[in-house]
Amino acid sequence: MNRTAIYHLNESAFAEPLPGNRFFLRLRLGKEDKDAKVVVHYGKKYVFQDVRLKKEMGLASVSGPFCHFETTVELNDPRLAYVFEITSGDEHCFYSERGVLDEYDFSLAYEDFFQYSYVRQSDAVEVPEWVHRAVIYQIFPDRFHEGKKGKDRSYINLKWGDNPTPASFAGGDLMGIVEKLPYLQDLGVNAIYLTPIFLSPSYHKYDTIDYLQIDPQLGEEEDLKTLIASAHEKGIRIILDAVFNHISDRSPFFLDAKGRGKDSPYRDWFFFDEEGGYQYFSVCPSMPKLNPFCPSCGDYLKKVALHYLEMGIDGWRLDVSDEVDHAFWKDFRKSIKSAYPDSVIIGEHWHNAHAFLRGDEFDGVMNYPLTYAIVEALARKKIDARALADRMNGLLLRYRPSLTPYMMNLLDSHDTHRFLTLASGDRLALESALAILVFSPGMSCLYYGTEVPMEGGYDPDSRRCFPWEREKAENTHKTIVKQLISLRKSDSLSFGRVSISAENGLLHVKRGDSGNGYELLVNLSKVPVKASGRPTISSGYVGNAIQPYGFLIRRY
Amino acid sequence: MNRTAIYHLNESAFAEPLPGNRFFLRLRLGKEDKDAKVVVHYGKKYVFQDVRLKKEMGLASVSGPFCHFETTVELNDPRLAYVFEITSGDEHCFYSERGVLDEYDFSLAYEDFFQYSYVRQSDAVEVPEWVHRAVIYQIFPDRFHEGKKGKDRSYINLKWGDNPTPASFAGGDLMGIVEKLPYLQDLGVNAIYLTPIFLSPSYHKYDTIDYLQIDPQLGEEEDLKTLIASAHEKGIRIILDAVFNHISDRSPFFLDAKGRGKDSPYRDWFFFDEEGGYQYFSVCPSMPKLNPFCPSCGDYLKKVALHYLEMGIDGWRLDVSDEVDHAFWKDFRKSIKSAYPDSVIIGEHWHNAHAFLRGDEFDGVMNYPLTYAIVEALARKKIDARALADRMNGLLLRYRPSLTPYMMNLLDSHDTHRFLTLASGDRLALESALAILVFSPGMSCLYYGTEVPMEGGYDPDSRRCFPWEREKAENTHKTIVKQLISLRKSDSLSFGRVSISAENGLLHVKRGDSGNGYELLVNLSKVPVKASGRPTISSGYVGNAIQPYGFLIRRY
Repeated sequence: MNRTAIYHLNESAFAEPLPGNRFFLRLRLGKEDKDAKVVVHYGKKYVFQDVRLKKEMGLASVSGPFCHFETTVELNDPRLAYVFEITSGDEHCFYSERGVLDEYDFSLAYEDFFQYSYVRQSDAVEVPEWVHRAVIYQIFPDRFHEGKKGKDRSYINLKWGDNPTPASFAGGDLMGIVEKLPYLQDLGVNAIYLTPIFLSPSYHKYDTIDYLQIDPQLGEEEDLKTLIASAHEKGIRIILDAVFNHISDRSPFFLDAKGRGKDSPYRDWFFFDEEGGYQYFSVCPSMPKLNPFCPSCGDYLKKVALHYLEMGIDGWRLDVSDEVDHAFWKDFRKSIKSAYPDSVIIGEHWHNAHAFLRGDEFDGVMNYPLTYAIVEALARKKIDARALADRMNGLLLRYRPSLTPYMMNLLDSHDTHRFLTLASGDRLALESALAILVFSPGMSCLYYGTEVPMEGGYDPDSRRCFPWEREKAENTHKTIVKQLISLRKSDSLSFGRVSISAENGLLHVKRGDSGNGYELLVNLSKVPVKASGRPTISSGYVGNAIQPYGFLIRRY
Repeated sequence: MNRTAIYHLNESAFAEPLPGNRFFLRLRLGKEDKDAKVVVHYGKKYVFQDVRLKKEMGLASVSGPFCHFETTVELNDPRLAYVFEITSGDEHCFYSERGVLDEYDFSLAYEDFFQYSYVRQSDAVEVPEWVHRAVIYQIFPDRFHEGKKGKDRSYINLKWGDNPTPASFAGGDLMGIVEKLPYLQDLGVNAIYLTPIFLSPSYHKYDTIDYLQIDPQLGEEEDLKTLIASAHEKGIRIILDAVFNHISDRSPFFLDAKGRGKDSPYRDWFFFDEEGGYQYFSVCPSMPKLNPFCPSCGDYLKKVALHYLEMGIDGWRLDVSDEVDHAFWKDFRKSIKSAYPDSVIIGEHWHNAHAFLRGDEFDGVMNYPLTYAIVEALARKKIDARALADRMNGLLLRYRPSLTPYMMNLLDSHDTHRFLTLASGDRLALESALAILVFSPGMSCLYYGTEVPMEGGYDPDSRRCFPWEREKAENTHKTIVKQLISLRKSDSLSFGRVSISAENGLLHVKRGDSGNGYELLVNLSKVPVKASGRPTISSGYVGNAIQPYGFLIRRY
């Protein structure tokens, strides 16, 4: 037995309460112990010494050098105590908070059992129905479509379709999105995430001058109201982008703080040093860092967030949220969720976000680690099915399972190369990547134009104008994208259990109930692989064989 | 190399920020890799791809099957990115958020480096000077000393010195403690933790009727004020016991909630079911569980806590705190710490408390896992020096290092057997246990009478009357206890680094700076072990040999 691989932690991704005094439990072992018999001894905390139940745990997944056993236990009490017993080959041990032990004296178990001390009201994770079914379309407004009549177009300096520079303004606006809602409805998406729309000197608008004013290039408040109302009419939710880590150096708050120094009521909204220098985002002095830990600054930002929720939006994506104070996000969540419990709060995180996903800050985060796993397999073509399954399974173990529906899964965004470009234009690989995306637990998010499909390298090239001349050209690619989006909204892919494995060079993802659902096979090998069954959706499936980087979806 | 043993997690006990953009980093390896060369590649997050520094990490401790490497790195930026490189024997690997990797492409590091995304103001852990030096004396007021003149003594049903039952009232009170403050000052303690003193039907008072009234058996508000003032005059802090998990079924709030049902404003202060049943503490219906998640209940309890802090107490010990809602404790901490930043909040936890020690709930917890490690070694005499060192080192790895000074270390309490009784009366073992206690990072807490020494089995026997007839009998044991308390308050034992190891059957604990401090040697073998040096304090040290279960403290 690999004793150093054994791992469990209370109140974590390894132990969470479920409704009705049920408890999800997970135990990690070394992969070589995947045939082990794992039993959890559990009971009510205050009588565990005397009264215990036993339940065998099942192998749930294999991920890299580890495997994971899981089960759900139920008590008529909200206070759980438990200890694991593991038998692998000739070896046998117990595992409690004290570690791995050869023998275990249950009469002294109160000294070191694992516990879920009490299921508290605030431990529950509520997931609105719409989140389970969400297929989000990310729009970069300046580059999507121009629809506003009679506006001042003098700021536009990019001919629609030309390659953008970091100073290009192309003219897209909110009314352009309203105009294209029928297109999006036809595509099948049910939510839109808009990059920032507030007053800003830049085309990308991540440097806000005034959060309470829609940038006139994009429209006015009435246009946003129209967009919200028209989208809602079509069953499409609206998520906006809150850039609360930093602000524009042209914002009145910053100008006042800089100009009046310590006499400014906004001085503590920023991080000035004694010499007048200040902290800023990344390497950009034009984006001074905000300090929402300062109460008046925090209150202002909460007011901004509530203002647009009051107007009808359905949630916020939070820019650079990992660099903002935990204390602020806790306050922020309380304000938002007490008034708008069905709204979503999604952080921008590229790395492990566990410290923000404890139930008191964000609902979920942008799932870039999944992005890169899929990129490695299907764009860079560097890892095989086994390695991809390992990474996907590993990512599902990072956070509480109940949070998974809130993860915002994506292949690319305004902050990355477009997937198709990383894949050197390989449409088949993009389609298979999209198939993996819609089978992955969490919200699916498509960057605008993926359906066309659009190409583009790193910023600013990933922010090209939408090629509307191709709109009418219904092609195979777009049809597959639409089929995948439609399938994503089925019960199986919205609520079903997931299992991810690899065999014969194929990635194998199943979602649904035990006897009813869909399975996806993606060929990550260099040779065709035979696979039978009537395809629900497929690409690169020819003569009962999945071609390299092709996929097949079928019912089971 | 044992690849499954490798472990690190951002924003955890493995990575914390220190003042001045310094970062403490810890990496776990398998014990067999303790001679590995471990290098951390680190740099500013936004330029990590291009500009990196390297630092070799040092072996800090060995604990069970694992060893830990640590270092502190410094940046002129609050945003840290890092990746580990490990060389052990012929093997070589990198370790990032993606896992253990044979090769690492730093040009793609932004996909998976570890990060401390930003050092936020609320990430800092502040430890008041008095906490570093704290030696706490825990008093069970009914059993310590009677000092109130002219009080109604009719409730007293136990003759001082007789064995208590679960219904005994012995007459101890707050003025009794005031009277014995010179005794406690002479003993050398600088803080007192009192079990509950508020109106209650029981002798132990863990079932409160009214938090805002001192139980008349123990005195009145003036007596508490006298105790606080007199103690403070002598440099002794006062910590009270807040029982906020549950209340007495005779409290007016519960009686109203039960009697008037849904018409009671206090109904939601409790967890009633449809049939009129309700949740309660452990197996005790006389202690209905409170619901501080209900705002009016939470506000009331915060008011109680602030009332006594306003009166001058120095902190709260929180009873059954692990069964109370996280959301309440977060609010509670905010209220307390904004007004009384130097007060302490100590939870009662018997198990892993990581979910409560994230900086936004408690300062520290009662360190019962350490209690049981010492009990196993010196009272039950079941584990050797190597095993004890392993467990002590393991416990130091559970939480952020900055929190360690707040841990409340103890050998026993009103909720356990007395240590001496578990040790079958072996005073030498008790003295060695106390030596380990004062060398352990964290506050030392002695249960009343340990210095005499008192015996006692489980509740109610551990709550015997203090045998004041022994007060004058200065004996060797008491002298050693006083010496240990005095040493505990030295700079070395208050602020010094700790290292814990085992050799020749001896537990070896060093505390101090690199060239100056104290070391403790405890013989956990069955035979005398030679050890030289002039003893600062010792017991069972005869002819240059430490006898079994004896100890020696010397300077280094």
